[in-house]
Amino acid sequence: MAKGLTKRSEDYSKWYNELVVKADLAENSAVRGCMVIKPYGYAIWEKMQAELDKKFKETGHQNAYFPLFVPKSLFEAEEKNAEGFAKECAVVTHYRLKTDPNDASKLIADPEAKLEEELIVRPTSEAIIWNTYKGWIQSYRDLPILVNQWANVVRWEMRTRLFLRTAEFLWQEGHTAHATKAEAVAETAQMNEIYANFVQDFMAIPVVQGRKTESERFAGADDTFCIEALMQDGKALQAGTSHFLGQNFAKAFDVKFTSKEGKQDHVWATSWGVSTRLMGALIMTHSDDQGLVLPPNLAPIQVVIVPIYKGEEQLAQISEVASAIVQDLRSRNITVKFDNRDTLRPGAKFAQYELQGVPLRIAIGPKDLANGQVELARRDNLTKTTVSNENLSEHIAGLLNEIQESLYSKALEYRDTHITEVDTFDEFKEVLETKGGFISAHWDGTAETEEKIKQLTKATIRCIPFEGAKIPGKCVFTGEASAERVLFAKAY
Amino acid sequence: MAKGLTKRSEDYSKWYNELVVKADLAENSAVRGCMVIKPYGYAIWEKMQAELDKKFKETGHQNAYFPLFVPKSLFEAEEKNAEGFAKECAVVTHYRLKTDPNDASKLIADPEAKLEEELIVRPTSEAIIWNTYKGWIQSYRDLPILVNQWANVVRWEMRTRLFLRTAEFLWQEGHTAHATKAEAVAETAQMNEIYANFVQDFMAIPVVQGRKTESERFAGADDTFCIEALMQDGKALQAGTSHFLGQNFAKAFDVKFTSKEGKQDHVWATSWGVSTRLMGALIMTHSDDQGLVLPPNLAPIQVVIVPIYKGEEQLAQISEVASAIVQDLRSRNITVKFDNRDTLRPGAKFAQYELQGVPLRIAIGPKDLANGQVELARRDNLTKTTVSNENLSEHIAGLLNEIQESLYSKALEYRDTHITEVDTFDEFKEVLETKGGFISAHWDGTAETEEKIKQLTKATIRCIPFEGAKIPGKCVFTGEASAERVLFAKAY
Repeated sequence: MAKGLTKRSEDYSKWYNELVVKADLAENSAVRGCMVIKPYGYAIWEKMQAELDKKFKETGHQNAYFPLFVPKSLFEAEEKNAEGFAKECAVVTHYRLKTDPNDASKLIADPEAKLEEELIVRPTSEAIIWNTYKGWIQSYRDLPILVNQWANVVRWEMRTRLFLRTAEFLWQEGHTAHATKAEAVAETAQMNEIYANFVQDFMAIPVVQGRKTESERFAGADDTFCIEALMQDGKALQAGTSHFLGQNFAKAFDVKFTSKEGKQDHVWATSWGVSTRLMGALIMTHSDDQGLVLPPNLAPIQVVIVPIYKGEEQLAQISEVASAIVQDLRSRNITVKFDNRDTLRPGAKFAQYELQGVPLRIAIGPKDLANGQVELARRDNLTKTTVSNENLSEHIAGLLNEIQESLYSKALEYRDTHITEVDTFDEFKEVLETKGGFISAHWDGTAETEEKIKQLTKATIRCIPFEGAKIPGKCVFTGEASAERVLFAKAY
Repeated sequence: MAKGLTKRSEDYSKWYNELVVKADLAENSAVRGCMVIKPYGYAIWEKMQAELDKKFKETGHQNAYFPLFVPKSLFEAEEKNAEGFAKECAVVTHYRLKTDPNDASKLIADPEAKLEEELIVRPTSEAIIWNTYKGWIQSYRDLPILVNQWANVVRWEMRTRLFLRTAEFLWQEGHTAHATKAEAVAETAQMNEIYANFVQDFMAIPVVQGRKTESERFAGADDTFCIEALMQDGKALQAGTSHFLGQNFAKAFDVKFTSKEGKQDHVWATSWGVSTRLMGALIMTHSDDQGLVLPPNLAPIQVVIVPIYKGEEQLAQISEVASAIVQDLRSRNITVKFDNRDTLRPGAKFAQYELQGVPLRIAIGPKDLANGQVELARRDNLTKTTVSNENLSEHIAGLLNEIQESLYSKALEYRDTHITEVDTFDEFKEVLETKGGFISAHWDGTAETEEKIKQLTKATIRCIPFEGAKIPGKCVFTGEASAERVLFAKAY
């Protein structure tokens, strides 16, 4: 167990909070609910960004940037959206500070610089973007618009946790405009699929794709698709959402286009996003009591080399071997660090890289030098082997792939053994309390039943899965007819 | 002249404003002073970001992210910095909206959700970052900290212009912490040098490196280095700044470290930034009455191919040739677009790409097909040539380099012929009013003289240049002794 890190079995929530800080990923700031993302954490986020950005561009999307602020009157325009976010909006009311007349060392908001209309710090950008699209769209020739934005957003949450729920977070939000409903629905599905592939293939986190129930939909959407992941403590985490917005925003902002046939119609919309919350999913899916475990695809350092030496001469000899390995690995685009700091003992370095989830650690001591070998330690399963220096980089490249796949398989096995079909409400409650995970159960399709189950058990419907046979049955709670099973879980 | 674009000689300022919008770079938004950066403009900014980010990382910097908001009490801590920015701060006072009791369709800031302490939307992040560094730094082993942040900032400007001066803008801000003054000064110089190289080599914009006078310094800095560029209308533009912050922020936030020798000392600091303002510099350095001119390094589309055809069959034949060219160019990492839209005539396409500054245009018609040739048009000098299809991609690669260099040479020649040495104040005023550009003149070193010259002429001291002989003389305004010439100009 890493020094001072609470065990998962003792207190999963405490383990998470400690790990985020000890592994140098993020910390709380002086601003209530806002986090500082530290360089090591940000480097992981940058890797996610780069891969997602590539996938967005490959599917024809372009980046743009829209204002941080939304005038209150625009924010109000789409009623459901406004209602959904009103309770968590940061509001700018003044545009100037002045010296406090009662204390020259203090500043106060200048009462003479009160804004005529308050500005909302964007909790999401549909309003400001659709007000802008109004000027961009006249004819079918202007469609589709396939735009994404990388930005910060603010949602004033009362209970915050690093990465999982913060007042300010980083995300990307795609906002597309289409001439037909079918095209917008296809876009919604495509982006959900891109998220699923990214999270599974790149982050090694299995997800269930599905649609949200009406009560769990994005405020202002006609349909919300999502990807749902399962954490090690049996709670679900919504990892990404893709919304079919119908013509709701086009109607609220009066965005019409002339079709090929000369007819006027409102534009169809989608929006979709993932956020720094994915960092939370990453940590909670793979990490262990020793600290962070990172899939090689996301590791800022994939391989670390630690020399074990006495005296300058031994260090020089080891450095020579290490340099050759570094060069070899870099030529394969493997990120490697040679940690020759003389301020820390090897054991302390081992502990640090274990805590920070570096996938592979190479140790080189005098005996290894003599035998033309190195010691290789895998972070994921904590095994050590001694391997020859020959073809080492090829071996390591293979091993990194193996680790990536193995992390996914392990998470998939956990997830699959934690989807439990239940047919009675007693079973429902028992599984939820003892085993956790997703509960696959019939539901009568009403918001009332959904709400009652939530009140009684804290479990919500995470999604109506796309995959699997749609076999009818009877609602686990009311016994009414049900068209198909849905997935319930307690969730982050 | 591009359709509807004002000529530079008629009204330079109007030309700029029109060009930014017509070339699809950016537009004003519904939020006073905030812009929308459109996909074409954002693609240019992304190229700048990628190159700068690479240079920062090559010199050991890492990215991180700090909160958007700064609690008022932290903002006040470094007095000069607070004073310098207080007048342009957006202030968040409430964290919730509620339904207006007088009108159920409206929202108001909920009076019961008033923040105990107001939050400032960051105009720059020294305060929040140094408050954070306090927790990161105990010993010399924790130093240096070399961190950069890509972020949005807000400075409430009364008169705004797209890219040049907007209430919200995008930038990067580096914030480093060092054990010694010498190291911090070296970092300040290094980053200014990186900016200079980037702007010259990548953006093809010549700059003068120098230091700011005390009156023009960043609020809270002991020394400000800068790069100054010259626009086509003879006005200067500050393209980047690098600040030596001394121990000012370390003292304000009580950030001390224990040295190797066991002594306690305050940490030394730098900060440095460039912003979307560089987009303004780019536009105003190279563009002409036909529209945008982009250096190939920054062009989202480097080469466009326009087919000139009658009927499907001709288009098919041209498409075949074009596809081969596209493939060849892409294999050289040249960005190319084949514009086969049937909704626009070739002439309209030509005009669009001219307006948007695509460096090279290839036109292929039936005659070209027959002769195994294409027509090649350069955007920078508007020349056309007919060239063979053989070795076309190699020819184009060479041409793109030539254009990049030629744009720089042209801008450099303009800049160099617009640095005028003057020795009397009459000459100073005359050159400023007739020729414009940088005026190299002696100055007595006092803030009073600087201020008087500014009031009389609107010219400010852009910098005390690093290069060139430091020859003493007499102040152009007071006749007092001067150690060296400085550069004056009217500026953006």
